[in-house]
Amino acid sequence: MMGRLVRMAVGWFYLSFYALSLLGLMCVILTVYWMQLWHGGFAWDGTSRLVFNYHPVFMVAGSVVVYSAASLVYRLPQSWVGPKLPWKIGHAVLHLLAFILTVLGLVVVFQFHNHENTVSLYSLHSWLGIVTVFLFACQWFLGFVVFLLPWVSVWLRSLLKPIHVFFGAVILFLSIASVISGINEKLFFSLNNNTQPYSSLPSEAVFANSTGMLVVVFGLLVLYILLVSSWKRPEPGILSEGQPLLRDGE
Amino acid sequence: MMGRLVRMAVGWFYLSFYALSLLGLMCVILTVYWMQLWHGGFAWDGTSRLVFNYHPVFMVAGSVVVYSAASLVYRLPQSWVGPKLPWKIGHAVLHLLAFILTVLGLVVVFQFHNHENTVSLYSLHSWLGIVTVFLFACQWFLGFVVFLLPWVSVWLRSLLKPIHVFFGAVILFLSIASVISGINEKLFFSLNNNTQPYSSLPSEAVFANSTGMLVVVFGLLVLYILLVSSWKRPEPGILSEGQPLLRDGE
Repeated sequence: MMGRLVRMAVGWFYLSFYALSLLGLMCVILTVYWMQLWHGGFAWDGTSRLVFNYHPVFMVAGSVVVYSAASLVYRLPQSWVGPKLPWKIGHAVLHLLAFILTVLGLVVVFQFHNHENTVSLYSLHSWLGIVTVFLFACQWFLGFVVFLLPWVSVWLRSLLKPIHVFFGAVILFLSIASVISGINEKLFFSLNNNTQPYSSLPSEAVFANSTGMLVVVFGLLVLYILLVSSWKRPEPGILSEGQPLLRDGE
Repeated sequence: MMGRLVRMAVGWFYLSFYALSLLGLMCVILTVYWMQLWHGGFAWDGTSRLVFNYHPVFMVAGSVVVYSAASLVYRLPQSWVGPKLPWKIGHAVLHLLAFILTVLGLVVVFQFHNHENTVSLYSLHSWLGIVTVFLFACQWFLGFVVFLLPWVSVWLRSLLKPIHVFFGAVILFLSIASVISGINEKLFFSLNNNTQPYSSLPSEAVFANSTGMLVVVFGLLVLYILLVSSWKRPEPGILSEGQPLLRDGE
């Protein structure tokens, strides 16, 4: 009975896992398509305004999709048994990858503004975005020091863990808010002074709005799995004490 | 010892409570000031474009500040003992007030668009906002049916409670993302074709950006109290069983 329940839960997990991965991949692919089809594609040299087009792609890929994958490492059933250290390293490495992509996303937009001789960091989108990247850097560094380096006590770790998880969710939330305001801002820029303004909902607007909404749906599913679902590594002792593997969401 | 701990926790609660109330009030006042000082104030008649200026005020007040107050009702120490029903009714009534303010926020922007002969619901801000209001309506209705009407079993209630709390947090999160993209959008509208563009960070831009960032800070504090802090009504039995009142955040 117990074994069947666990197998069902694992099967359900993998179904959700693949569906979520597909959704995350879709978010990135749609952002690439948006930049490819309506904004001339990509080029990384200081002389081209096409360098901007990497910005939405790196931000959606780094600060949302890879970030989410990194956050959900401990929700993989394989991580629930055996030594935790390899999974911690995986969690840290994937978040580092997400951070590098996010910083590249910043680099290209600063390069673009230099090229266009416009200032950076004036819109609310940019203020929120830069604060999010700063929080992400702090979270990674503190997470590394507290949870990966060996000299912090288990007591302090368990005290800081809910705060680490909360800020992990907060950074994802701020990333999504930054992405939404960014897509909105980009569409007002690119569909301005045009025969087809944003308000006439041309195909680009529908496409990019839908991409934004998909990013929101993806992020909410990730936050649900992270904060509510029972897909968690059991606390120490819970298995050996014969308590159910699948606890309720509380 | 136990009594002193409880008094300290209650004292700390009230300090945080007043600080948070002040912050929420500041968010509303700053939004009113923004509309008053830079956009000519308020007027509610179909012939004035000033009707729009209620939109940010109602949305910040309704979907963020009153919504947050309503969400935090069960975090008041007074609600931890005695019958739960009066607090449930307070929770529902405050959320209804938040919902009414939010709907008024929609009404004024539709009135404004009618007056200007422009279409509604084209920007990503508006898509996200309308979905948020729809989810808010569903959440209120389902919350009323499941948690306030008498015929739902305690079992079903405790099953749905984590989902209700999660969606409560989600709606606040979506509201804040809508407010951020809305402030950003409004500034691109109003600081466009101007001697002082948004990118030159005129005083309005600094003021409204800061208001947006304050809304984010307020929302994050509310989410922290809602999801992480130990300020919770103890589960049935926890007091009588002599367990500590202040559990850790997990």
